[in-house]
Amino acid sequence: MLLQPVGIIRNAVQEPFLVAGRDGISMREELDTSRDRIKSAKEAISEIIIDESRIELLEGIEEYSHVTVLYWGHRVPEESRAVNRVHPMGRRDIPLTGIFSTCSPARPNPVLATVVQLHARRGNVLEVTGLDAVDESPLIDIKPYVPTHYPQTDVRIPAWMAGLMQDIAEQRR
Amino acid sequence: MLLQPVGIIRNAVQEPFLVAGRDGISMREELDTSRDRIKSAKEAISEIIIDESRIELLEGIEEYSHVTVLYWGHRVPEESRAVNRVHPMGRRDIPLTGIFSTCSPARPNPVLATVVQLHARRGNVLEVTGLDAVDESPLIDIKPYVPTHYPQTDVRIPAWMAGLMQDIAEQRR
Repeated sequence: MLLQPVGIIRNAVQEPFLVAGRDGISMREELDTSRDRIKSAKEAISEIIIDESRIELLEGIEEYSHVTVLYWGHRVPEESRAVNRVHPMGRRDIPLTGIFSTCSPARPNPVLATVVQLHARRGNVLEVTGLDAVDESPLIDIKPYVPTHYPQTDVRIPAWMAGLMQDIAEQRR
Repeated sequence: MLLQPVGIIRNAVQEPFLVAGRDGISMREELDTSRDRIKSAKEAISEIIIDESRIELLEGIEEYSHVTVLYWGHRVPEESRAVNRVHPMGRRDIPLTGIFSTCSPARPNPVLATVVQLHARRGNVLEVTGLDAVDESPLIDIKPYVPTHYPQTDVRIPAWMAGLMQDIAEQRR
């Protein structure tokens, strides 16, 4: 299962927010600083540059307001692929949790996915917001975002995840 | 960018619905038959079996009602990774469209993603519904499904995609 990059992401984000290592992950900076950076990364324009030779892959993409971007976590250390459990977002007050229950970039296969808003297309370049990928992340795939594929009712998430979401939302106000 | 399988999917679906080849994709069977099969696949219980050695990856997963499953389209022919445009779902009445604007399994990197409902966990086995993966698809990743990451308002999709969604919804009634 070998992935072929089909483009590259250009972003203001130069360093991962989280530092992943064999013994789990930790925040690179103080929590408030990282929150601010996450917030500004979410609002900034990112560019997705598709290889010129594959430009036909994009035909019709302008008709979507949102797309899902799959990219490779190229700054995730290779050794962290063996990690099974982490403190979510490096928060020691949340118990060790299985990676599949977290959004940690340190995963057995660091294929990272984000729904982004598509603002413009210029030839082989897409301008999007909401993409917190590190600069130069290799592009794996772009998929249409079709909201009916995503249930909004009768969905349950753990209390700790709801708490993290609320912390980030409060920071945004 | 080398993927390591971390498990396998067991499913009643034995053959891909769509046949992908160098010149695009076509439905394996008549449209109505395929629709019925898609419908029953969506309702059937599928099993996701995680490698015993990585069972800790699942810790806490029971607290989610839904998860996103990433798996490898192992029945997608290697040569179809070079395809740039297809008729969506093999429908010749819909114009050729860039793969990134479609849900075609024939993609440059056949990393397929589906949001599934999680019904039960038995040790290293998850029982889910809504997974239309072909039997024995290698598991790449499982991610938490957090609905606030998925916008539901001000989302725009092409008319042809809305039409396809409606066709499938009508079939379900």
